[in-house]
Amino acid sequence: MPPSSVLITEEGPREGFQIEKGPIPTARKVELIDALSETGLTRIQVASFVSRKQVPGMADADDIARRIRIKPGVEYTALWFNDAGLERARASGRLTLEGKVRIYPSDAFLKRNINRTPEQHLAHTHGEIARFKELGIPVRDASVSNAFGCNFQGDIPLARVIECVGQLLDLAREHDVHFEKISLADTMAWATPHTVKRMIGAVREAFPDAQLSLHLHDTRGMGIANACAGLEMGISKFDAAVGGLGGCPFAAHKGAAGNVCTEDLAFLCQEMGIETGINLDALIACGQLAEDIVGHALPGSIKQGGNLARLREAAREGALA
Amino acid sequence: MPPSSVLITEEGPREGFQIEKGPIPTARKVELIDALSETGLTRIQVASFVSRKQVPGMADADDIARRIRIKPGVEYTALWFNDAGLERARASGRLTLEGKVRIYPSDAFLKRNINRTPEQHLAHTHGEIARFKELGIPVRDASVSNAFGCNFQGDIPLARVIECVGQLLDLAREHDVHFEKISLADTMAWATPHTVKRMIGAVREAFPDAQLSLHLHDTRGMGIANACAGLEMGISKFDAAVGGLGGCPFAAHKGAAGNVCTEDLAFLCQEMGIETGINLDALIACGQLAEDIVGHALPGSIKQGGNLARLREAAREGALA
Repeated sequence: MPPSSVLITEEGPREGFQIEKGPIPTARKVELIDALSETGLTRIQVASFVSRKQVPGMADADDIARRIRIKPGVEYTALWFNDAGLERARASGRLTLEGKVRIYPSDAFLKRNINRTPEQHLAHTHGEIARFKELGIPVRDASVSNAFGCNFQGDIPLARVIECVGQLLDLAREHDVHFEKISLADTMAWATPHTVKRMIGAVREAFPDAQLSLHLHDTRGMGIANACAGLEMGISKFDAAVGGLGGCPFAAHKGAAGNVCTEDLAFLCQEMGIETGINLDALIACGQLAEDIVGHALPGSIKQGGNLARLREAAREGALA
Repeated sequence: MPPSSVLITEEGPREGFQIEKGPIPTARKVELIDALSETGLTRIQVASFVSRKQVPGMADADDIARRIRIKPGVEYTALWFNDAGLERARASGRLTLEGKVRIYPSDAFLKRNINRTPEQHLAHTHGEIARFKELGIPVRDASVSNAFGCNFQGDIPLARVIECVGQLLDLAREHDVHFEKISLADTMAWATPHTVKRMIGAVREAFPDAQLSLHLHDTRGMGIANACAGLEMGISKFDAAVGGLGGCPFAAHKGAAGNVCTEDLAFLCQEMGIETGINLDALIACGQLAEDIVGHALPGSIKQGGNLARLREAAREGALA
């Protein structure tokens, strides 16, 4: 059964700007975030506090955090991967700090990109949660990266994903924290609608109380179909990126760009009668703004195709005229 | 239940080239059709025999029909809208002539684009079928255009679509012909997965023996999700366009381009274990060729994202190495 309402976390500014060739002026990034704040979105990931050298597109993360207009009721979050990044995020004083932990079912990805064995990573994650607690940062987000498949490892067996979710729940129990969402992340776009349904069904059967969420990429054109499969399975939390900005810079193929597009997902929800709290027309305008800012076409469709709600109105008026 | 196999009718050369600004050399159109012939596709719509003045991108339809390489086992079809067009299609002597009739549930579209009332159109269709029979052309295809919604009329009620399918079946009975497929055509991209499921369910309940098919456009990013909904409802016949070429030139908004992409649909089928008879890698190469021919990016995703089957092989080899 589809949920009655859906919470979309907007990741476009972070996912998108970090991989655009740029340079994109900070003012324009802030312009997009401020516009997104007016759409009804309540969670916006605005930046990554990562190495300025390695990710030059995010070198201005501190400035972004300083300059955005904070709208009451909206949480502005950020990513970081080490203490230095966390300190920068905290220093802004304007962001919602949330502890996020990641488990990697693909041993090959873990080895290749993070240079850890699964055991080392689990030990590291224990340390991470302890550190978050010490710093008073709520640990509320978890994710299983490459949950559906990995370019270096291949398909990920269902049993392995269930094991990973179990590890996350064990971590939560041991450290007395609560994950508000556990994202099944299709980082490299291996998911298809039937694998989404199968995985959600299997994980939920194993852990009925886990708050599952989907983080989807559209690399193979399956993003919206996968989101729809998730909705049909009752998933009510999604990450998405305005315009379809973004991608995984580590996925080792140039087609990796493209998170599932926020306004296309919001349109699907609108048409299914699912509440998102989003003003779709305002969000479509943000998709168009994002395109203007990056200076090239972005993959989202509704910003070209148009909101059916407006066409319905026009048809109604035409019939009356 | 998804079907065990799916028949995809490739409409890219016809749908696509007729709306590209062009001019595209005939040799290149033929090159794409010849490449498509080698993918395992068994039905390829190669051209429209329409007014050379009104649709200059199809002025070379006769040449195309003359120059393509006819591969045994592949049917090459064409569209036409009047006797002159039919005569040109027939004159080539190389095409499979199939009679196709169309019913329009949107009175507004029928009035605006064809200038007929529903009654006039039904009378016209009677005449069309009689004429096909007279000429010995098998009448095997029917479609309900704008079945899901129309920019001029709004949403189309289910009952109206059921009425239209009923009219088609009555026509078939009266003229003693058999429709091998009745397409529910989402000409203006109003469908979403749940409306697809609802409509197929309702039409099938009313007419359990009707051979339903889907003709989908991706204007609002729902194409593959809608195809997936169709597959889940057991639909086994789809129209699609390589690379996502094409669109409806009459749909009155610039985002109308983009039939559901053949290689993305074939990828979805591959991943669901549904037989298509298509060599996906060869089809992806055709998508890339189509892009090269039109000279701009086409919307399909798999041609950038890559066939997972190849990534699986690479991951397996990497694991063994």
